[in-house]
Amino acid sequence: MDVARVALHPEHPRGVEEALAAIDGVELVMPAIDEIVGAAPILVTFHWSDAYLSSDLRWVQSISAGVDQYPLTRMQSAGVVLTSARGVHAIPVAEHALALLLALTRGVGVAMRDAEHKRWRPRMGQELAGRTAAVLGLGTIGTAVAERLAALGIRVIGTRNRPELGHPIAELVHGPDGTMDVCRLADIVVSTLPGGSATRHEIGTAELEALGRGWVVNVGRGSTIDQEAVVEALESGSLRGVGLDVFESEPLPASSPLWSHPRVVITPHVGGFSPAYGVRLAQLLTTNLDAFMGRGEWVNRVV
Amino acid sequence: MDVARVALHPEHPRGVEEALAAIDGVELVMPAIDEIVGAAPILVTFHWSDAYLSSDLRWVQSISAGVDQYPLTRMQSAGVVLTSARGVHAIPVAEHALALLLALTRGVGVAMRDAEHKRWRPRMGQELAGRTAAVLGLGTIGTAVAERLAALGIRVIGTRNRPELGHPIAELVHGPDGTMDVCRLADIVVSTLPGGSATRHEIGTAELEALGRGWVVNVGRGSTIDQEAVVEALESGSLRGVGLDVFESEPLPASSPLWSHPRVVITPHVGGFSPAYGVRLAQLLTTNLDAFMGRGEWVNRVV
Repeated sequence: MDVARVALHPEHPRGVEEALAAIDGVELVMPAIDEIVGAAPILVTFHWSDAYLSSDLRWVQSISAGVDQYPLTRMQSAGVVLTSARGVHAIPVAEHALALLLALTRGVGVAMRDAEHKRWRPRMGQELAGRTAAVLGLGTIGTAVAERLAALGIRVIGTRNRPELGHPIAELVHGPDGTMDVCRLADIVVSTLPGGSATRHEIGTAELEALGRGWVVNVGRGSTIDQEAVVEALESGSLRGVGLDVFESEPLPASSPLWSHPRVVITPHVGGFSPAYGVRLAQLLTTNLDAFMGRGEWVNRVV
Repeated sequence: MDVARVALHPEHPRGVEEALAAIDGVELVMPAIDEIVGAAPILVTFHWSDAYLSSDLRWVQSISAGVDQYPLTRMQSAGVVLTSARGVHAIPVAEHALALLLALTRGVGVAMRDAEHKRWRPRMGQELAGRTAAVLGLGTIGTAVAERLAALGIRVIGTRNRPELGHPIAELVHGPDGTMDVCRLADIVVSTLPGGSATRHEIGTAELEALGRGWVVNVGRGSTIDQEAVVEALESGSLRGVGLDVFESEPLPASSPLWSHPRVVITPHVGGFSPAYGVRLAQLLTTNLDAFMGRGEWVNRVV
């Protein structure tokens, strides 16, 4: 059996090292941060430096679903394959989106702020059943979110890159330029959008005005939401609440009003965290190793 | 058209007064707490005093789903009809149960404790998909909980008063004496049980041991769970986390370790709160008014 040398970037989620090391036919190497270049023809990483391209690198398996940190054109020119971890995060991120939304509507966030001060202050909660949610980015993660929202009796609409395909759950699907249209119809907006210039501030002042008295949840990338506009909409009272796992700057700076606003629920970018993560990534790497060896099809190949 | 005089107990949820006052054929009276006796033949109430029975009272519509605060035998002897609000709380309580469970597994509770101190501390989350949940009390609320758990990819089992009826969602159904049996198989226990002596400390040391490394959520009544046993199981590390909306003593005393334990999520008995509550109770009262007038069937009649 062929043995493939695979380098794992030193910054990686818990459980990944063990799962990759257990794959038959993989020789896992763990270079220090300044020894990644040339460590192996295959690199498993979340972070990127253009220096990595100057070696004998042939394939990058990303640990992330999004790939906006990679120079796609340069990688293609250099003959380096890039595969994403799309799908690996779907279950934990979808459960996380639901956790943030329900923490807003059922007052769990503010109750836990109160708990830190031993304050018993019952407040009216809201119901999700019968509402309309717009999921921005109906890809693998967005679809997993949509499935769970629908099961709560929520009508789902949304956007995706190829709206002509329709969607098995969303009743109404627009392209990426339809964000305003779905915000106008929605009580809830959930962003699962990747980062990058195309999605920067996809939700801003105009979209929040279109949403009106609703809730916003972001489990995509922090750059997709204009945080200043969110804070303004919260303070003017139009926005009911916001649940964020990702931020424009991480860790969230101490100066941000999001830390303490009673209608904000925040988690420190943990939506994708799951003990099953390493195992799923290892399954993906195993499949793609066959493709690398010329024995099968690539999964999640980007370039 | 007949007009029915209906007294509303002064302690009632927000929205109830407006919704009942809007019913055609109802003359709503709002007695002070010491003027309830004799105020009307129909009383809408959550609280009970045996003094109420000495009047011309003929029908009590409870604001609660549970009826353990009422003296059923004495009411029956006195010829007073009692109807519960069963079903009225199902959606908000089911959403609340899910909110508590997801706040535990996705670390929202501890992240909000951290947020109060502007601390960014990512922690591993857990997945619910693929787990087994035992729902204690597969009635109207328990079934609404079961539907939502199943949609998250959770296998549902549970207990109900008439296990011979089976259950549309739960794969395995025991009677009330089967709590230990379902706890042994479960990763998650959700109690929607009513109060009273029959369910007191239904979850205690033995049941928590049978559950092992799992999560407990209570949206039923506080008396159904032995809180001391829960704290012990948390401190010994066997219990992964507990989400409580109800407590043995409410408000939760300042001395309780539940206020500050990092693996506890608490809300101040708000699971049933919903802006739709008054409207649903009014619909129920309208139906039961017809029965009271001899023109239809009672709904949720207890005695």
